[in-house]
Amino acid sequence: MTDPGGAASWDFTLLAEEGEARRGRLHTGRGTIATPAFMPVATAGSVKGLLPDQVRATGADMVLANGYHLLLRPGPERVAELGGLHRFMNWDGPILTDSGGYQVLSLAGLRRLDDDGVTFRSHIDGSYHRLTPEGAMAIQHQLDADITMVLDECPPYPSGTETARRSLERTLNWARRCRAAFEERPGYGLFGIVQGGVHPGLRKESARRLVELDFHGYAVGGLAVGEPAAERDRALEATEPHLPRACPRYLMGVGKPLDLVAAVARGMDLFDCVLPTRSGRRGLAYTWDGEIKLSHARHRDDPNPLDPGSDCPASRDYSRAYLHHLFKAGEMLGGVLVSWHNLWFYQELMAAMAKAIEAGRFASFAEEITRRQKRSRL
Amino acid sequence: MTDPGGAASWDFTLLAEEGEARRGRLHTGRGTIATPAFMPVATAGSVKGLLPDQVRATGADMVLANGYHLLLRPGPERVAELGGLHRFMNWDGPILTDSGGYQVLSLAGLRRLDDDGVTFRSHIDGSYHRLTPEGAMAIQHQLDADITMVLDECPPYPSGTETARRSLERTLNWARRCRAAFEERPGYGLFGIVQGGVHPGLRKESARRLVELDFHGYAVGGLAVGEPAAERDRALEATEPHLPRACPRYLMGVGKPLDLVAAVARGMDLFDCVLPTRSGRRGLAYTWDGEIKLSHARHRDDPNPLDPGSDCPASRDYSRAYLHHLFKAGEMLGGVLVSWHNLWFYQELMAAMAKAIEAGRFASFAEEITRRQKRSRL
Repeated sequence: MTDPGGAASWDFTLLAEEGEARRGRLHTGRGTIATPAFMPVATAGSVKGLLPDQVRATGADMVLANGYHLLLRPGPERVAELGGLHRFMNWDGPILTDSGGYQVLSLAGLRRLDDDGVTFRSHIDGSYHRLTPEGAMAIQHQLDADITMVLDECPPYPSGTETARRSLERTLNWARRCRAAFEERPGYGLFGIVQGGVHPGLRKESARRLVELDFHGYAVGGLAVGEPAAERDRALEATEPHLPRACPRYLMGVGKPLDLVAAVARGMDLFDCVLPTRSGRRGLAYTWDGEIKLSHARHRDDPNPLDPGSDCPASRDYSRAYLHHLFKAGEMLGGVLVSWHNLWFYQELMAAMAKAIEAGRFASFAEEITRRQKRSRL
Repeated sequence: MTDPGGAASWDFTLLAEEGEARRGRLHTGRGTIATPAFMPVATAGSVKGLLPDQVRATGADMVLANGYHLLLRPGPERVAELGGLHRFMNWDGPILTDSGGYQVLSLAGLRRLDDDGVTFRSHIDGSYHRLTPEGAMAIQHQLDADITMVLDECPPYPSGTETARRSLERTLNWARRCRAAFEERPGYGLFGIVQGGVHPGLRKESARRLVELDFHGYAVGGLAVGEPAAERDRALEATEPHLPRACPRYLMGVGKPLDLVAAVARGMDLFDCVLPTRSGRRGLAYTWDGEIKLSHARHRDDPNPLDPGSDCPASRDYSRAYLHHLFKAGEMLGGVLVSWHNLWFYQELMAAMAKAIEAGRFASFAEEITRRQKRSRL
């Protein structure tokens, strides 16, 4: 494991651009992330069903863990005593943690929000907890996150301009407090989060005022909460020109394969989403030619694997008939294999986008993948 | 994959003996099994939660699949059309299949037994099926099992002498029909099954009459059905002297670590049991020093892995605190890791017994492991 206190430092280098799309390299104390990058989600310190070696084999450089879940269980003090989150979950690459704000604010009826922070009850045992900007920084420090996220308020969709503006002000105030509380260390970074609902004017304002606070990177939050894709695209387009070119941009919680392509086209570099593993457990496979629902009877006798050309054992070494059988029989190996396949496919997609941007053919790549994805055979 | 129709042939070689305990090598068309051997259970064509490569890495030479489950789903014709069970489940080593008789006869209220066979209803969809000795041979042939088991009747525990005798006669009659129906092929074997409840006289009679039918190996069935260990030991001791020294002996469905040691001491060579994976999914780990219940609060802060000296990543690379957390959080990786650890430990135990027999110190090994197992820390 690289010594995070050593010489390794934080750096983001853009290697190629085509339109707004970017190909880059993000250096952290624990390793380099090729962008555009997809982060597998390890909510409670585990990418569901997969060993870290299997996750690494997909090509993933960084994983995401959830501050809220780890706060409640096993608790950041315990993780710190056990040597930090990397050792705890046996992942020696970079980890980004979210602040837990999104999860806490989703606890309708179990939380009380004020300007200083949020008080909430655990969904596990009903115990009371308090989360403030300073507390969120301390928790992520204890977890030893390589990338720390500010505490933000994510308004629901749809939210009117007034609600979105109030939420934006609070988020900016919290971002300022997080920036002050964050302990700078070589190789570690802190990301601010742009809010503003689907209102282009608010997105622009949020981005500009956030950038004044000088973060290591910028996230776009508050999307992937139920809005139509066109509204999301518009919000991204209103945000992107106001983010510094020299910093990584992270679109939180997105998405399906074509959502990623659309967001890369709009200048985003980092992504996370539960879909590859959640869908994988339900037998839904993402492929170059669209989605495949493995429990469907049409796959019962199909000797073909999900992708004979893939280097992923799950994609290459098992027939669709076998995968169909595993889901019908309720065998957990089905969820393991399709989760692995999906994460591998997502990494192949990111690598293909990177290559296309380098070759100056991202636009035609995007057109082709859009056409192929719509073949969806289920 | 070895061509099972090629030059590879069936052979069992005893390499060492100590008392009744035996160390040997069983050659089949698809590979060699070092005995004593433990077969991981792949009921429906999957060792629950683990990839075949992970199973192979434990040292397992052969797995067991369940004729009843595969008969109902996906069906032996489908498996045959897809290239046989080995290709279907991506396991190129030997596979032993049971006949499904045990499962069918456990379907109280759903089956009707007669001298010719058994009619039963599927537990999945209620459809009617008929299983006869000849049908059981055909199904296992379609699956392309390397070791085929005869159809037998396994009386419940306890059964009186009269019931056990009637069942024994039927089992012998079915064994004769299976022997006639089994298609001999180089590298493939058929095992007869000794029954007789816990009655030493019936066990002896069953073994002697079965041996007259000349099988490739002999299984001891009807144990591990709830009888006390002392009765099981007595039944084994009554059976063993009447089984040919030159054939492998398989004790069906056994057991916990010390059960395996006791059975090896009584001349048994092959074993299968769902416990390593079933217990693994529930967070119960088997170790050299007894059982460990990982969800127990005492493991919450324990930085030690299950076995730092093991080559198994699951045993070596994750703290008990992390495993505890995975079970508390309901993360499926917990079941995957502890299943893998357990299967690896079982293979280490078999290898240690083999080595002890070769060195003429099996008796002292058995004493030592018995002492250590009873330390059980949970």
